[in-house]
Amino acid sequence: MSLLVTGSIGLDTVEVPTGKREHIIGGSAVYFSLAASFFTPVRLVGVVGEDCPPNLLSIFKDYDVDTSGLEVRKGSQTFRWHGSYVKNMNQCETIRTDLNVLAENAAKIPEKFRDSRYAFLANTHPTIQQQTLSQLHKPRLVVADTMNLWIENESKELAKLLKQIDGLVLNDGEARLLTGKQNLIVAAHEVLKMGPKFVVVKKGEHGCLMVSENDTFVLPAFPADKVIDPTGAGDSFAGGMMGYLATQGNSYPSTVKRALAFGTVVASFAIADFSVDGLKSTNRQAIDHRWEKFKQSMIF
Amino acid sequence: MSLLVTGSIGLDTVEVPTGKREHIIGGSAVYFSLAASFFTPVRLVGVVGEDCPPNLLSIFKDYDVDTSGLEVRKGSQTFRWHGSYVKNMNQCETIRTDLNVLAENAAKIPEKFRDSRYAFLANTHPTIQQQTLSQLHKPRLVVADTMNLWIENESKELAKLLKQIDGLVLNDGEARLLTGKQNLIVAAHEVLKMGPKFVVVKKGEHGCLMVSENDTFVLPAFPADKVIDPTGAGDSFAGGMMGYLATQGNSYPSTVKRALAFGTVVASFAIADFSVDGLKSTNRQAIDHRWEKFKQSMIF
Repeated sequence: MSLLVTGSIGLDTVEVPTGKREHIIGGSAVYFSLAASFFTPVRLVGVVGEDCPPNLLSIFKDYDVDTSGLEVRKGSQTFRWHGSYVKNMNQCETIRTDLNVLAENAAKIPEKFRDSRYAFLANTHPTIQQQTLSQLHKPRLVVADTMNLWIENESKELAKLLKQIDGLVLNDGEARLLTGKQNLIVAAHEVLKMGPKFVVVKKGEHGCLMVSENDTFVLPAFPADKVIDPTGAGDSFAGGMMGYLATQGNSYPSTVKRALAFGTVVASFAIADFSVDGLKSTNRQAIDHRWEKFKQSMIF
Repeated sequence: MSLLVTGSIGLDTVEVPTGKREHIIGGSAVYFSLAASFFTPVRLVGVVGEDCPPNLLSIFKDYDVDTSGLEVRKGSQTFRWHGSYVKNMNQCETIRTDLNVLAENAAKIPEKFRDSRYAFLANTHPTIQQQTLSQLHKPRLVVADTMNLWIENESKELAKLLKQIDGLVLNDGEARLLTGKQNLIVAAHEVLKMGPKFVVVKKGEHGCLMVSENDTFVLPAFPADKVIDPTGAGDSFAGGMMGYLATQGNSYPSTVKRALAFGTVVASFAIADFSVDGLKSTNRQAIDHRWEKFKQSMIF
């Protein structure tokens, strides 16, 4: 089924223990779109500035991503982010963020995208997430991501958003910050009280957990011995998860479990190289093969 | 089959966010013995001082633990440890360690214990671990634990020990310290080069991973919403794992996987209360029930 994503599209500078890459392709919606497109057609909504390099705009050409909702705004600058994993590969230190065009009006959702049944509101200001959501006619499953910045500074708007979405995806530190609870199972249950029907807590190299009213499911990360650049792992995870869910048309616990495992596997490809190169080096067959291996390894 | 353990027996003072308990029963061999005794008879070897309170000595009376190897040494003081989880429930801060009797000669292994086929050398000086091992006639599976202190200060003796054991159990920080590798899968493979046939890396609330020449297996922790005192979780994990292995008589990958899952489940009981109260509140039936639930939750 139709899957819409909106989020950041930009240029990253990334430092890792093995080196540094400047102005490489990044952004939550970029990672998500590529990851989800292995499973289902993706409708991308986002905005870049007029400085956007051609290689960013052409990144989707071999993928099933409809970029009609990608606006190149004149007079604006593309979002840029600079982060470092030099101290800790599992915890990113943001060195600089230039919101640029992301601080302006959100991209408009094209009329032909408004019937999307599945939607992922990647991390951005919760007011913009709500505006995006309000343009969709009748979504069946809406999942959002968020971050520390909005939890700390936009708690009222975030609270409103949480009442309108089906699922929330966030990392362990964010779950603790949002709820004030250290134990992640307890924290996840607190999030459920805020509105979502399920919450997925991403723990980086330690995997993820999903909590709904009746289910708790924990999954380790795929045991990767090659981790070059963790940037985009969470968005690739969400892309794999949502992409698979959109092909299934249901949210039974077993479906959600399989979706989380697909997210886990897609993320394991994303982190094996800088920028989107890890995702670009794989395909659905390789993903399915690794997924099956992962599934078998969980049986005891 | 016969399972021998040697390690610390002592009194702990533990601080957690909800409070503080002083001079409660602790020690690696104590947690291990109780945990393993749910599966198989345990032979305990260890030493305490003459100040040892009667409730520590009587802790095993309802359990299948042979305490013939437990020496109460006159003129010596019992091992004491003081730690805090106030800042971080997943990372203990040691406030004070009084080795006391543990700094003296090791306890002698009773003659009738020397035919033990399974042995766990809980964390202590690697020279003492080697002395203990040399007293065993023909052990089939020997697994050891270690810690930062020995990795940093007794690397030569530890290197010797590693060549004599089948398996090493250590936590994530220790694995990184021992190998200089941040990626835990890479670190585990480095440990294999040092001698052991398999290595189990404990990650606290994030579960564990096991690496051998041909297998890699990752397992999340049991999703516990009640964590009171993490002390002894790793030793209880090792106890559950070794206890189950000793009942199976083989180390096939599938057996080891099930053993790790039993370790995981036993540890989830251990952390639900202070000292050994979490372990004392459970039984084999409850462990099997939770294990089955855990196993089912891993299937997708």
